Amino acid sequence: MKKMLLASSSTIYGQRYLEYLHDEIKNLFSGCKKILFVPYARPSGISHLEYTEKAKNVFKILNLEIIDYTNEDLRETLEKCDGIFIGGGNTFLLLDKLYQYSLIDILKNKIDSGIPYLGTSAGTNICGITIGTTNDMPIVHVKSLEALGIIDFNINPHYLDPIDGFEHMGESRETRINEFHKFNDQFVIGLREGSYLQVEGDDIYLKGLKHAVIFKKKNEKFEIENGFNLKNII
Amino acid sequence: MKKMLLASSSTIYGQRYLEYLHDEIKNLFSGCKKILFVPYARPSGISHLEYTEKAKNVFKILNLEIIDYTNEDLRETLEKCDGIFIGGGNTFLLLDKLYQYSLIDILKNKIDSGIPYLGTSAGTNICGITIGTTNDMPIVHVKSLEALGIIDFNINPHYLDPIDGFEHMGESRETRINEFHKFNDQFVIGLREGSYLQVEGDDIYLKGLKHAVIFKKKNEKFEIENGFNLKNII
Repeated sequence: MKKMLLASSSTIYGQRYLEYLHDEIKNLFSGCKKILFVPYARPSGISHLEYTEKAKNVFKILNLEIIDYTNEDLRETLEKCDGIFIGGGNTFLLLDKLYQYSLIDILKNKIDSGIPYLGTSAGTNICGITIGTTNDMPIVHVKSLEALGIIDFNINPHYLDPIDGFEHMGESRETRINEFHKFNDQFVIGLREGSYLQVEGDDIYLKGLKHAVIFKKKNEKFEIENGFNLKNII
Repeated sequence: MKKMLLASSSTIYGQRYLEYLHDEIKNLFSGCKKILFVPYARPSGISHLEYTEKAKNVFKILNLEIIDYTNEDLRETLEKCDGIFIGGGNTFLLLDKLYQYSLIDILKNKIDSGIPYLGTSAGTNICGITIGTTNDMPIVHVKSLEALGIIDFNINPHYLDPIDGFEHMGESRETRINEFHKFNDQFVIGLREGSYLQVEGDDIYLKGLKHAVIFKKKNEKFEIENGFNLKNII
């Protein structure tokens, strides 16, 4: 049975890294001894080692152990871990590395089989059907936008509402998602910072601090509340 | 001799489409009789025909004539036009269509040979080396990020400064561009709305309402002022 936590953001304003998720992380990984951290998304370009240490330090506070980073190719570690955390950063870069090391299928199988999984931001985004609703810049060329497809829709993490009085004329997040729907069919959840999806088998509950917004092709967008089960609209 | 106007945005707050560029457009296309509009970027998913009509209507006010849209494959029209305007929208979509119809080389040759060229937003972005610094969502998969490379750097249109007091934790534009520089060498100009580049042969002047910001790999960013010639830093 799938067991996942898919967070919009690792960090919310005024708090430390992963702080608002501490209790959920403890629950999710309860009993895990060898958690793999996937550092490929490298926010601000930090090294894989530094990024792994950052996650490791927080997990230590929670009495959870992340496996040391020793090798860019994570296949072997992936085979033997009992929990997975994929951190945020650049989504193109993350997906590109997963393709480079042929990790897509093994990751998908592990998660489908119920290994506890935590994703934040890019690590959340890649669990959808494609990365076509990422906010990131294409700093590397990825051979396909197809992602893990563990959940049957797309995610826009760090979702932003239009800001009153803001004079910027670049497209809003909503406009961009509507453009996405001219070429793609799956619905998109705009997941605001502080919110996350809790996946338990086929149930996908919205949790956290904010409502979320659903964009269905050719439909008006609508808001869903904390506790809503997305299974009902798939 | 190259003759181009590369605008960050087609529209600035409180004004109509292209309004702030009227005089520049009249100068740029002075004497042109058959201007091609390239509508591939389709902002908000409007049709190629609608988008062409929108541009046509503004150009009519300026006594300039855009060729009627009759065919998605613009190669033939491109061969016979004497001015080119590529409008904004989704940059991935725009570049994908240019590849689909094999228009990259012919466009590049035309522009290098001095045909007057206007780009706004996505139409500006594709004149750089790659589209790796676009703000758009990858709503289609493009086979390469390589763009026209008519100017020897990358552009980030609609550049945004961090907003004081804004509690959003998603990456700033600056962070994203710094991530870009972990994998790419060319410098990036953050072109704020209301600013544009005026290209005359090898000279590339910053013009318009705002300063611009230059991000050079491994260097501190710096501001350039109206009238600055980017030839001096290439």
